[in-house]
Amino acid sequence: MFENTTGAPRTKAERTRARIRDTALASFRERGYDETTVRLIAQEAGVSLGNAYYYFPTKNHLVQELYVEVQREHRAAAEPLLGESTDLIDRLGVVYRTGLTTLEPFHRFAPGFLSAAVSPKSPINPLAAESTEARDLAVGLFDEAVAGARHSLPDDLARSLPEVFWLGYLLLALFWVYDTSPGQERTLRLLDRGLKLLALALPLVKLPLLRKPLRELVELIGEVRA
Amino acid sequence: MFENTTGAPRTKAERTRARIRDTALASFRERGYDETTVRLIAQEAGVSLGNAYYYFPTKNHLVQELYVEVQREHRAAAEPLLGESTDLIDRLGVVYRTGLTTLEPFHRFAPGFLSAAVSPKSPINPLAAESTEARDLAVGLFDEAVAGARHSLPDDLARSLPEVFWLGYLLLALFWVYDTSPGQERTLRLLDRGLKLLALALPLVKLPLLRKPLRELVELIGEVRA
Repeated sequence: MFENTTGAPRTKAERTRARIRDTALASFRERGYDETTVRLIAQEAGVSLGNAYYYFPTKNHLVQELYVEVQREHRAAAEPLLGESTDLIDRLGVVYRTGLTTLEPFHRFAPGFLSAAVSPKSPINPLAAESTEARDLAVGLFDEAVAGARHSLPDDLARSLPEVFWLGYLLLALFWVYDTSPGQERTLRLLDRGLKLLALALPLVKLPLLRKPLRELVELIGEVRA
Repeated sequence: MFENTTGAPRTKAERTRARIRDTALASFRERGYDETTVRLIAQEAGVSLGNAYYYFPTKNHLVQELYVEVQREHRAAAEPLLGESTDLIDRLGVVYRTGLTTLEPFHRFAPGFLSAAVSPKSPINPLAAESTEARDLAVGLFDEAVAGARHSLPDDLARSLPEVFWLGYLLLALFWVYDTSPGQERTLRLLDRGLKLLALALPLVKLPLLRKPLRELVELIGEVRA
């Protein structure tokens, strides 16, 4: 079900690691965060508990594998569609919508993941040092959405936007966790309306009156990671 | 340390309940969420565990007492200052700033509270049915901030704003949990800049082009509680 996207594992150690990892990712999809344990994964992967811990010292190391996998799926879903438009709002819509589609299988387990990840002290917090690989992939996709777009935004703002759009994605995902509407259509409506409003508001950021306070706000929001 | 703000307890049952409650609130301030247990509270209040459970079936019932207490402190801190201005932005600043001041003693325990409260399934989630009393107090304070202000906002928008400003307060509090700067001055700067930008942007919401999509977005955000 899961491919090792860095190429087929060649050594026995690589194969064992890949088997544990793939078993864990399948378990997160089927059982969610709370019910997945390293002990269970070791059993299902047919390795000893000690061997499993050798490759993944904690369950959270397996969650990081999941994060990276989800980001790769997100990128794979978004990239072909990003080729279709150079409009900034369209491109953002592609990244946000394919992101939600990629998250969809996890919706029923989302409260458990959220509780485990939300603390700034959690090693699976999206802002944590441990999440750097997955975060870089995610912010990179927003980078691409902005870089490939025709727009006339001030340079300083354009540079800060991918990070802010990514933080916006975390807030959208937070809303999505709370969204019990069928197919989470309420989140999709919020996204559509938010993008429409952004399309109307973006030209205004060039007003000298708004530009400086907006840039300062955007910079400060970025400091949430500091 | 804590007063029963609904008047001095008169019956023995009322006094026992108040003693358990006050002991629990002191414990949340001193130990945080994770380390506070009903067993410990019963001991410290000098009642049996069964007696404590009779008044407060779970620890989360005690958290709700804390929420209501914090909202009352917030209101007590905000109201005298609300008398000083009829400017909407000034009044919002008062409510947000006094709110952060009231939360300040809990900052070191905030990650624990956040993890316990963030799930939409949690009975101590601010949006949960169980939190209605505390939430009504909090939204009521934003109601007062808007109702006592001179402004020329469209009526439909003005009606939705207290709820949206309160959700904004939850997001500000989320940023604050992550804020490790001394005295959480980064959150205060974010607030100041956000209010400045709001002051500049509010007149724009009367533009016919922005008004409808903004109202739709505001309504949809309000649906996070549905």
